[in-house]
This record gives sequence, structure tokens and C-alpha cells, in this order.
Amino acid sequence: MMQRYFTKTDSPIGSVYFTTDDEMIHHMRNVMRFKENENVVLVFNEAITFLSRIQSLTDEGITFELVEEIKKNVELPLKVTIASAFPKGDKLKWITQKSTELGASSFAFFPSSRSVVKLDKKKAMKKKESLEKIAMEASEQSHRTHVPTVDFFGNFSSVCESFKNYDKVLVAYEESAKIGETTKFFSVVQDMKENEKLLLVFGPEGGFSEAEVEEMEAFLAIRVGLGPRILRAETAPMYALSAISTIRELM
Amino acid sequence: MMQRYFTKTDSPIGSVYFTTDDEMIHHMRNVMRFKENENVVLVFNEAITFLSRIQSLTDEGITFELVEEIKKNVELPLKVTIASAFPKGDKLKWITQKSTELGASSFAFFPSSRSVVKLDKKKAMKKKESLEKIAMEASEQSHRTHVPTVDFFGNFSSVCESFKNYDKVLVAYEESAKIGETTKFFSVVQDMKENEKLLLVFGPEGGFSEAEVEEMEAFLAIRVGLGPRILRAETAPMYALSAISTIRELM
Repeated sequence: MMQRYFTKTDSPIGSVYFTTDDEMIHHMRNVMRFKENENVVLVFNEAITFLSRIQSLTDEGITFELVEEIKKNVELPLKVTIASAFPKGDKLKWITQKSTELGASSFAFFPSSRSVVKLDKKKAMKKKESLEKIAMEASEQSHRTHVPTVDFFGNFSSVCESFKNYDKVLVAYEESAKIGETTKFFSVVQDMKENEKLLLVFGPEGGFSEAEVEEMEAFLAIRVGLGPRILRAETAPMYALSAISTIRELM
Repeated sequence: MMQRYFTKTDSPIGSVYFTTDDEMIHHMRNVMRFKENENVVLVFNEAITFLSRIQSLTDEGITFELVEEIKKNVELPLKVTIASAFPKGDKLKWITQKSTELGASSFAFFPSSRSVVKLDKKKAMKKKESLEKIAMEASEQSHRTHVPTVDFFGNFSSVCESFKNYDKVLVAYEESAKIGETTKFFSVVQDMKENEKLLLVFGPEGGFSEAEVEEMEAFLAIRVGLGPRILRAETAPMYALSAISTIRELM
């Protein structure tokens, strides 16, 4: 499988690209031990993607010849943001890695009344950096052309206020799963237009309180169930993203 | 959320049930600290499920009154077996836990030519026991009425020979994902009859060899892609089970 790199720069005007990015140089020279004339995939801003041949590589920089643009679209047809209350343990890492593989567009993590974990600003900043790295690696590994962004909210109200930035907001609500509400999720996802923005909100292990659900509903969120089985906090986002892919990419 | 227990026995004829199961007694008395008159859910053989009230509990045994049968069906409408080549690290644990939450009916693990991990018979037996425990816990947690079984195959050929026990066999094949074959999975899952048996076969990190895919095809397996993104060995089964739930339970 061909190695791919996110250059985090615009695509060049000509057919040659030169990078001095230390991380990329280190990875290509010391980890992958690439040689001249080998091929990699370069992903530039706006998901512009090129099959690229290594012309020269030294500790100072690497020169590529851009051989052919790759136009295949591997991104989900909806822009899906996964918003999750802080879960226990290292589940944030799992949610980020797996949801990136499954096509999430961005992440928003926030405290809720039943979150066991508390994160001060400093810890959140550190966590954000490490999750961004995980999102980058998972994007490369799953051949995506977009790297999800990661944001932390300081409180529950600011999450609710962000709802206005999305075309639809769905809240996974365990009680909905229990009473058998399963068709709403399908119909909303099916009816959205290409590239519209969908926010999916997930609670912590103990679920949202009824008050929190009501606050979200006041900001026009819709409660949905995700099938008849009870899913863990880190499994529910994977189910939802796979379901979106099934509805919009497989059918 | 009400605690549930798999009794591994037939449901009693009357409305009283008595257990001397050590693990259950320990969990109820020492872990959950249940008292008389509290309620739990008991799941008997053939998924017969009762809301049950604790009448008495001692170190010798627990007596329940069966209050009301719970008839809600939480099992996937297809019996899905997840067959996975040995993956690296503790991914078997993850595959078992998450796939149980997502409705898998049973598991079959096997060596393939590109599996890095080798398991001798003794290790496989030990692994089987620990995975059965994980499947049991995940079933309880996700409120299922069936606990998936776990089997280990000694070689690749015996997996292929087992194909005849299923109504359909689908192989997740990365090359199919690359060439954009995504509709086959949907149409097979949609067309199967209720309670038919579906085997989903997943390769190790490096994928199956072309020879292995051909051997499976000789045993009537169908290659399918699971959407346009490349999924890790432990993510692909979760995607497939979520997709089956979406097609058969949400639509």
C-alpha cells in the first residue's frame, strides 16, 4: 500500500514540489527508508492529491515530481462532526482514531454533568495536540484526503450554542434506543444534501441527564436511537458513522 | 440501567428461580451489593428473558421471583459470524467486545499466510476462554439475549471447509474497496431471509494473499468492499455489523 503524506501546504503550480518539513523528512528517510525514484502519495490543501515520485532526498529537503493527480473521492458525502462528552480512560483516543478511519470531518469534546473525567484548560490543550496527531495518522492510514480537526469546549452551553453552525444536529439518546426509535436517524441522514454539515452528539458512560437533553432540544437538536442494542460511549460514534456510510455510500 | 445475568440454564416452569452459580453469587453480593427486593434481568437459554426480583441471597444461593417476561427482540435479524485472521496485539479482544455490542452471533479466528501472530493449541484454548468471558460481559452490557460463541481454527483450509454451514459468505477485500466495489455487500445483506446465517471473513493487517482469496472463492465466498476508505483489521468488522444493522434494523 502506498505511503501518503499530508503536506499542509497548497499544491504547487508546476509539476515539482519541494519540502523542508522536518517530520516528513525524518519519516521518509529514517522510518520508511525511501530512496530516489520511489513513489508516494502527496495530499495538499483542499484535498488535492498527487501520485508523486521522489527525485532527491537529503536531510535538508525532499524534491518530488508530481506524476498524476488522483481524483478518487474517499470522503463521506456529508461533513460529520462527532461531539462527545468526556468519556473514561483513553477512550477519546479510540473515538478519534476509529471515527477518523470511518470518515468523521471533525471532533468536539466537552464536559457534561455525568462525565467522570474533568479536564482543565492546560490538560485539554495537551490532549488536543495528541488527538490531532492520532487523527493525522489515521487519515494517512485510511487514505483520506481530509484530516479531521479537534476542538475542546469548556462547558456544555457552548456546545449547544455551536449547534447553529450545522444543518442538522442529532443526539444519540439511550432512552430512544430503549423505546425503539430507530427510523429517525435513517430518514435525516438520507434526506440531507451533499456536503451539508451534520453534528452527532454522544453522551458519557452514564448518558445525558434529561435536563441536558431538553437544553439541546431547545437548540433544535433531534433525539435519535441507534438500533435496539445498548452501545458503549466509544462504540456509538462508530455505529453512526458506519450507518451514514451505508446509507450514503453503499446503497 | 438494570443489571442483567445470563443464567446458562433453561427457564424454570414456575415463577421462582434458584441459582447456586458461584460467579453470579459473587458478582451480585460483592460487586453490585444487591439486597432483597431489588430487580435484575435474568436471561435463560433460548434468549428467554425475565424481569426478576431478588427474594433472598446468601453465599449458598440466590432465589428470584420471575416478575414479567421481556419480549423485546434486540438480536440482529441475521445470524452473523465474524471470522477474522489473527491480528496483531490485543485486537482480538477489541474485535470480540465491539462486535458483540454490535450484534455478532459467533466468532471464528484463524491463521492466514500474512498473520504475524502464531497461536499453538494451548495458547488458543486460553485465548478462547478469555474471549468467551469478554463476549459474555459485552452481551450483558449491551442488553443482548444471546452470548456469541468463540472458536479457533487451526488452519486456513478448515475455515474454507466451514463455509458450507452458512447461507452466504462474504470476504472483505481491500482491493475491492480500492476499485470501488461497494454495492455487492448491500444487495446481499438486503436480500437475505430472516435468521439466515451470514459469515463475514476479514484478513489480517497485510490483507489476504490473492491465492487465499481464490481458495475462498472456490468455496463460494463473494468478495466485497466496505466503502471507499481503508479500514484497519479491527475496524472493518464493526463497520460491517453496523451496516447490517442499518440495512436490516434502521431502514
